[in-house]
Amino acid sequence: MTGTAEKPRARSHPRNSTALNISLDYTFDGLTGWRQFRVLRPCRGIYHDIRRRLPYYSSDITDAFTYRTIASTVRMYFVNLLPALAYTLDMNRRTGGSYGVNESLFSSALAAMVFSTIGAQPLTIVGITGLISLFNYTIYDIIKIYDVSLYARFMCWTAIWAAIWHWLVAIWNLCDYMRYITDFSSETFGMYVGIIYMIKGVEELVSLFDSYGSVDGYLSCVIAILYFGTVYTLEKIGNGVLAKPWARGFLADYAYPISTLFWVGFAHISGTLKRANISTLPISRAFYPTQPRDWLIDFWTLDVKWIFIAMPFGFLVMLLFYYDHNVSSLTAQAKQYPLKKPGGFHWDFFLLGCTTFIAGIVGIPLPNGLVPQAPVHTDSLTIYETDLQVIATEEGEGNEIRRPIVKASKVVEQRISHFLMGLAIIGTMTGPLLIVLHTMPRAIFCGVFFIVGWGSIENNGITQKLIFLFSERRFIQKGEPLLQIRRRKIWLYLFCQILGVALPVAISQTIAAIGFPVLVCLLIPFRWQLMPKFFLVKELEVMDDLTATNKVVLASLGGAPKLPDSSTADEYGLERRFSERRSGILRQRAGSYHR
Amino acid sequence: MTGTAEKPRARSHPRNSTALNISLDYTFDGLTGWRQFRVLRPCRGIYHDIRRRLPYYSSDITDAFTYRTIASTVRMYFVNLLPALAYTLDMNRRTGGSYGVNESLFSSALAAMVFSTIGAQPLTIVGITGLISLFNYTIYDIIKIYDVSLYARFMCWTAIWAAIWHWLVAIWNLCDYMRYITDFSSETFGMYVGIIYMIKGVEELVSLFDSYGSVDGYLSCVIAILYFGTVYTLEKIGNGVLAKPWARGFLADYAYPISTLFWVGFAHISGTLKRANISTLPISRAFYPTQPRDWLIDFWTLDVKWIFIAMPFGFLVMLLFYYDHNVSSLTAQAKQYPLKKPGGFHWDFFLLGCTTFIAGIVGIPLPNGLVPQAPVHTDSLTIYETDLQVIATEEGEGNEIRRPIVKASKVVEQRISHFLMGLAIIGTMTGPLLIVLHTMPRAIFCGVFFIVGWGSIENNGITQKLIFLFSERRFIQKGEPLLQIRRRKIWLYLFCQILGVALPVAISQTIAAIGFPVLVCLLIPFRWQLMPKFFLVKELEVMDDLTATNKVVLASLGGAPKLPDSSTADEYGLERRFSERRSGILRQRAGSYHR
Repeated sequence: MTGTAEKPRARSHPRNSTALNISLDYTFDGLTGWRQFRVLRPCRGIYHDIRRRLPYYSSDITDAFTYRTIASTVRMYFVNLLPALAYTLDMNRRTGGSYGVNESLFSSALAAMVFSTIGAQPLTIVGITGLISLFNYTIYDIIKIYDVSLYARFMCWTAIWAAIWHWLVAIWNLCDYMRYITDFSSETFGMYVGIIYMIKGVEELVSLFDSYGSVDGYLSCVIAILYFGTVYTLEKIGNGVLAKPWARGFLADYAYPISTLFWVGFAHISGTLKRANISTLPISRAFYPTQPRDWLIDFWTLDVKWIFIAMPFGFLVMLLFYYDHNVSSLTAQAKQYPLKKPGGFHWDFFLLGCTTFIAGIVGIPLPNGLVPQAPVHTDSLTIYETDLQVIATEEGEGNEIRRPIVKASKVVEQRISHFLMGLAIIGTMTGPLLIVLHTMPRAIFCGVFFIVGWGSIENNGITQKLIFLFSERRFIQKGEPLLQIRRRKIWLYLFCQILGVALPVAISQTIAAIGFPVLVCLLIPFRWQLMPKFFLVKELEVMDDLTATNKVVLASLGGAPKLPDSSTADEYGLERRFSERRSGILRQRAGSYHR
Repeated sequence: MTGTAEKPRARSHPRNSTALNISLDYTFDGLTGWRQFRVLRPCRGIYHDIRRRLPYYSSDITDAFTYRTIASTVRMYFVNLLPALAYTLDMNRRTGGSYGVNESLFSSALAAMVFSTIGAQPLTIVGITGLISLFNYTIYDIIKIYDVSLYARFMCWTAIWAAIWHWLVAIWNLCDYMRYITDFSSETFGMYVGIIYMIKGVEELVSLFDSYGSVDGYLSCVIAILYFGTVYTLEKIGNGVLAKPWARGFLADYAYPISTLFWVGFAHISGTLKRANISTLPISRAFYPTQPRDWLIDFWTLDVKWIFIAMPFGFLVMLLFYYDHNVSSLTAQAKQYPLKKPGGFHWDFFLLGCTTFIAGIVGIPLPNGLVPQAPVHTDSLTIYETDLQVIATEEGEGNEIRRPIVKASKVVEQRISHFLMGLAIIGTMTGPLLIVLHTMPRAIFCGVFFIVGWGSIENNGITQKLIFLFSERRFIQKGEPLLQIRRRKIWLYLFCQILGVALPVAISQTIAAIGFPVLVCLLIPFRWQLMPKFFLVKELEVMDDLTATNKVVLASLGGAPKLPDSSTADEYGLERRFSERRSGILRQRAGSYHR
């Protein structure tokens, strides 16, 4: 075999493809008069979302009969449930026990049932995030100053207001602005989330020392660290070239179940370990709220004053979900996945308003799109092929370089894996399975915080650019697009991102944490209005990339964004494409963010 | 830049070089009559060793005035001292407190002083190994069956007999047979040592649970794991392409000191950590034996029966040191280091007899060559240059592949770093510094066991061949020499090595452990007499390599070994050379074994 046996195609994802027959008749671009105003044409986005997606509904079920659906169900059950329980521990501790395992399972199950059956995009996994936990206990800290007994009803009204804001945004077609989101803000957000998760893991371990003493604390540290190491190593092996492809694939699919079973078992080995009597997940009576109350919150008894105070809080929840849910939906439909079925942002956001409303009045954590986990679902449904790239060198035959190139050949787009995962969560709510959950050491959940958080940090564009800057220059390939930019411009770009991370992290330990959605959303206008004053368009094109570029995505967002002169969407993301050409698509490690 | 800018030379080490002016007039090859018998010409090897090396003595001092000497002194101080103390903890616990920190420091200092001043090869670091610890406590277990009060005197006589055997071997020129040692046995030995160390680390942690309770135990687990992770990561960064070369070099040089200072400090942070009151290194009054006794053992009071029972034990010690010390000396002078000054195996082995004698009569652990650490000394004195290898591909300029190739350009061959390290150890024996040692948690030493042991396992040829066998075939370079051999032959070769590891590991927990030097030494005749019956010469040439190939080494061993027909020394080690050509010389990570 001489020459390059299989040349990697310049771009394998369908950004340029015209094969898809998605109707593009929903747009506001190019319209004049009253027709150009989104607010004046309510429900237009929702209508087109449904019209576009409905024809695929039957195939969403028939397409599901493959092995990948099963692997995906198992993987997503663990990847969804474990972090949800981890956040619950955190939330439970910091809201005076307002939210327990039953509330979290209820919330996850509700979201899974709604979005898997009537969501426009069933690939987007919806559940409990660390940020809603941060939100809930920050409000708790604020309410505590006045009267802690108001908390449940105040949260309920916050949710009701948030639901109303959601519906307005969906009806007024405002999700369109998501097409302007670029990697600049989504990387920043991913890094922020990753750091918060790492901090939460440490906080949770520290709280074990305070509540259960040193033996529990140190043993938990050991288990958390080794759990992290196990998941990380299994996923690394799964993405390598060792063993047969099916064996690797098995490890990558089941890294969480394998590690969890092993380390839960480890904590129960009789002898010193068993005697340590490590603290485990607290449970309560199945199907009942953790607190002695009815499921329905008596929200009508709240003072009118407090109802209106809840309104801006509801707006902040909506702002958070606007960014968080839509970005997670975008990353679940990212350009590296060869998706053929369209999404529907307006309809899904309307649905999110409904789940927010229901979750609010029964007093469970509000579910929304899971940023780190959403792409994992699509990933688990993607059929990857590890191809061989042979690079002929001038030194002759024996010296060619062989590299694995991962290609995504197909995605099993269907609703069943999401639905089955939801059923599994409902099953977990029953008494016997709750007792199984009760055997899980809290330490496992600290490990989950670490693995999800670190995944968000390790593959983040900020980390990648920092590694580029710290690498010795002479070992960098000549074709590397970042070499076209002056180093101090890269530093400036990173400085903006790091500031965007540092500010919300800094306030996250105070009651000002409530304002972090504003900071995150401000990054989008900052990117489009202010940054072009400091950077050349060319520089931004290399360093930044549009997050929404998949054609099936843009159809729901009203078409490609209007870019500054001399710039087209295809010119963005030089850096990403360079890296993809060299090493193929990076598999989504559970928790890895977005690239 | 087109084409290969800097083609890597096929072999950069001086195996083929004829520039060195080392006299080769010491050999027994080609002689006839009584002259061919080594035993009949006593001291011939020692005489030539001294004659060959003495002219370099003054340059051994004058060559030392460079920064590398300082970096090497600091690095070796930690790399020598920490494992020695780790083995001491193990030995102390399992010999009823016969050996403490003072004995170990005395032994290390004695060896350093003798070998740095009058040793033929001052690069070989001599000190306390894990195997002598295994030896000492196994004898303790045996003596305990009869009368434990005999132990000190019995060990003394074992050492005296061992010293006599050493002197005989040195005088009869028997070190010559070391030239037949190949990677087959040294890899097996390295893997055995690595596994024993890992086991010792775990045993030490378990013993903390038994002696000090669960808080101490679990905290120690945390510190040991994180200490391991810190040293490992720092050394990985030191060998990468991040940061400036001097900064990387700094990390690689000081990985041990940095990690040790950090984690010792960590254990003393006030609060929960300080309250855990973690167990630390036990010390006793400076310069006095740990037991209430004089330094000189009253060996003359031992019953004659026991004196003669000690003789075979002395022989086993000699057998262990014959292999262990000489192999560590060989790896300190391995082919990848461009050494210019000759070694002297006969003289050094005679000296080792002397230190064994002295150590024996004062009742301290017997020092010998440190297998994992010996190459680290030469490594720390080597001036490495990370060159750029540009591999032009047929895809054009922007797509060349840039790889770092590490070259060893020069070794600062001198005695001063070894001597200064010895002085530092003597300094550590004084009261104030003993108290500093006392602040060190035992957990650190468990971490040392892990890092030294894992280093021996990770880069071992056995591990490399296993990775080759488990890799997916299509990603293996065509030039890979192992591809020329049938896979089942590689498996057979590995099976022999793994058996050679499993047997001594299996007996290491019983009193039969005393026999492991015999097993290890048997590997050499096994390799030359039995294996050619199952393997073609060609196959062995690819998979195996002569350990002693440096010209400066062979001068002392009586020239190159006599190989089977149709085979020359240069044809061996295809696999190693292939890997060196691709990725350059692997830096010796502290504890990494030999390749």
